[in-house]
Amino acid sequence: MDYMTQMRALCAQARAGAAALQAAGAEGRTRALVAMADAIRAAGPQILAANAAEVEAARAKGADAAFLDRLTLDQARVDALADGVATVAQQDDPVGIERRRWRRPNGLDIAELSVSLGVIGVVFESRPNVAADAAALCVRAGNGVILRGGSEASGTVAAIIAAVRAGLRAAGLNEDAVQTPPDASREWVTAMLSLNDGGVDLVIPRGGKPLIAHVREHARVPVLSHLDGICHVYVDRDADPAKARDIVVDSKMRRTGVCNAAETLLVDAAVAEAMLPDIARALSARGCELRGDDAARRIVPSMSAATQADWETEYLDAILSVCIVDGPQGALEHIARYGSGHTEVVVTENAATAEAMIAAIDAAVIMHNASSGFSDGGEFGYGGEIGIATGRLHARGPVGAAQLTTSKYVVHGQGQVRG
Amino acid sequence: MDYMTQMRALCAQARAGAAALQAAGAEGRTRALVAMADAIRAAGPQILAANAAEVEAARAKGADAAFLDRLTLDQARVDALADGVATVAQQDDPVGIERRRWRRPNGLDIAELSVSLGVIGVVFESRPNVAADAAALCVRAGNGVILRGGSEASGTVAAIIAAVRAGLRAAGLNEDAVQTPPDASREWVTAMLSLNDGGVDLVIPRGGKPLIAHVREHARVPVLSHLDGICHVYVDRDADPAKARDIVVDSKMRRTGVCNAAETLLVDAAVAEAMLPDIARALSARGCELRGDDAARRIVPSMSAATQADWETEYLDAILSVCIVDGPQGALEHIARYGSGHTEVVVTENAATAEAMIAAIDAAVIMHNASSGFSDGGEFGYGGEIGIATGRLHARGPVGAAQLTTSKYVVHGQGQVRG
Repeated sequence: MDYMTQMRALCAQARAGAAALQAAGAEGRTRALVAMADAIRAAGPQILAANAAEVEAARAKGADAAFLDRLTLDQARVDALADGVATVAQQDDPVGIERRRWRRPNGLDIAELSVSLGVIGVVFESRPNVAADAAALCVRAGNGVILRGGSEASGTVAAIIAAVRAGLRAAGLNEDAVQTPPDASREWVTAMLSLNDGGVDLVIPRGGKPLIAHVREHARVPVLSHLDGICHVYVDRDADPAKARDIVVDSKMRRTGVCNAAETLLVDAAVAEAMLPDIARALSARGCELRGDDAARRIVPSMSAATQADWETEYLDAILSVCIVDGPQGALEHIARYGSGHTEVVVTENAATAEAMIAAIDAAVIMHNASSGFSDGGEFGYGGEIGIATGRLHARGPVGAAQLTTSKYVVHGQGQVRG
Repeated sequence: MDYMTQMRALCAQARAGAAALQAAGAEGRTRALVAMADAIRAAGPQILAANAAEVEAARAKGADAAFLDRLTLDQARVDALADGVATVAQQDDPVGIERRRWRRPNGLDIAELSVSLGVIGVVFESRPNVAADAAALCVRAGNGVILRGGSEASGTVAAIIAAVRAGLRAAGLNEDAVQTPPDASREWVTAMLSLNDGGVDLVIPRGGKPLIAHVREHARVPVLSHLDGICHVYVDRDADPAKARDIVVDSKMRRTGVCNAAETLLVDAAVAEAMLPDIARALSARGCELRGDDAARRIVPSMSAATQADWETEYLDAILSVCIVDGPQGALEHIARYGSGHTEVVVTENAATAEAMIAAIDAAVIMHNASSGFSDGGEFGYGGEIGIATGRLHARGPVGAAQLTTSKYVVHGQGQVRG
């Protein structure tokens, strides 16, 4: 059997499994999620053993520290996987919700109900936790899922998926809702991306820019993703200096390798002399390299010089570019030009400035006086996220279970005809 | 300049025009729509003159009656165009609506707001009214639009677009929000479908199956569309016979060439002998050809025999296939197998049967005791529609102005950091 045929069969199995999840109702899906969390905990030894072998193999092949960190599980991380699934179990179920309901003059009663999306393909790299998170959110929304992790993590992912499926079985549900291809061949991704005739309803890529670009380029099915996370923090003339410093440091340095980390600091020229030195000291103390424009370097001469490329770069590292701007308007222009539509932060105590900037910025998430780090499904209260979308269709921002549903319109009449 | 470069420029102009519409607020957009409706009325003579020449040319080329009917405008149809735009002016503005708002334990206040989608490409064929409807709905939602009609209607469409732009100007807005390519070359469509890097946010094709299939096949941007409208009417054992007859006749014969017309009648075996003859008589009296399975033909011998192909065919004509099914379960199986996810109708007075079938049917719109003809943006109260979507992402069912928006999350904090 070729890859397309086999992938089609996996999708059909996932769809049948999803139908069982849909029929089980909210309570059944909660039961399934609790059982999945328990099964992951119970399978800890097998998951850790599979992972240890893969970490060893990756190390032998010379993988770098960041890669090994993403790949490595320990007992605490396995516990976190299970806790994540248990958290999703506690979330409100997003299926069957009446989103709107209205009555027409002719007596027709129209309701928009949320329904499960269908079968979702998730393509990821070396982070095994994506498998558990994605499976949990898909199950919560009554969807089937095809999980395709990177070859370096395939054994770990297989062990996690085996546990998830065991949990579904233990809950009396159809384990086929959660699928993975039988091997790590890239052909499975190609097949998944082509199955737009009822195979896969949506593909979500998780990983580095080359993976996302590949999926976007080749997908013949809808994709939710973000390519870049060039997030800015703007410190306004009316910012509280201590809040501004703490928000900048947290936005940049909490974790530098994540998409919601800040890459560029914009400081209002009116307060740059007053506020930038303290912010720069705090960043340097945390080991952050600063690259400033001329105006910034006049205030903090220790900065290296930023070039055009810096404004366009997602460092994913302890580096921050710094640009002095001419107030809110200057910040808006910089963000409109270089922002990637992911997350932008405005720090100001001036409510009018905040509202005007929020209205003008075109991004999935706009933070006012809060760290960019809160642009995250978990922090939004979704119990996790399957990704963050910067496209404009279907869902924008953190994608949780509620975003993995679609609508169905139900119209009740009493025999109405149009005539 | 090549087509791509020129189309990119058109998109940039449309985006600038959209920004002006967004800045104008709900009131400004309403004013624009009222002025557009007035301008279409004022341009009636020019629109009719352009149309008369194109109808004449199409007739000379041997176009068939259905094509000529779609192409032809008269004073009443021009009035209807203007009335349609005026109706959209009266609709609730869909931009800046707070869709959800919640507070996190850490004090963050999160709001999901509706915002304009951006620039929408509309590819259509010979119906000039699509230009006015699409422009109105895009303006209502603060979007720019690139309208590309079929070559046979290009003069008529150009006259309508000129009027629409004059209306925008008269309202003090940027006419560039509504664009059309300078000629009828197919290369414009190709260019539009490729501009996925900020050119076009969404493409909506309107027309026959070859056009939709072409757009879906070649689009590198998101598409909202429906390929087939294989809609079923199921008459249950607990149906009211008169309602059933009237709903079947209206669903099939109100207009046979539209996507929400019924193509297959499913009759519960338990009442087929009692109800089918009356329904068949009413359909035949309206000139409808019936093609039945063996069981149906035993009851109404005048029917011709349906073949496998009949269950899979969208006739778009005065033909109805008839299948006797084993109650709700048989109907569900037939619909699951042959339905196109557009609109399905259930006729029954049994509320439990209705609810069970509504839950089980996977379609954009499910009608209970009402004609499939109500599956329509105007009938939903949207003031019109830019199309009906049967995909599962973003919008499903009739697409009105509210469906031409996306979300922006606004998070208000008091200096929160994740740490």
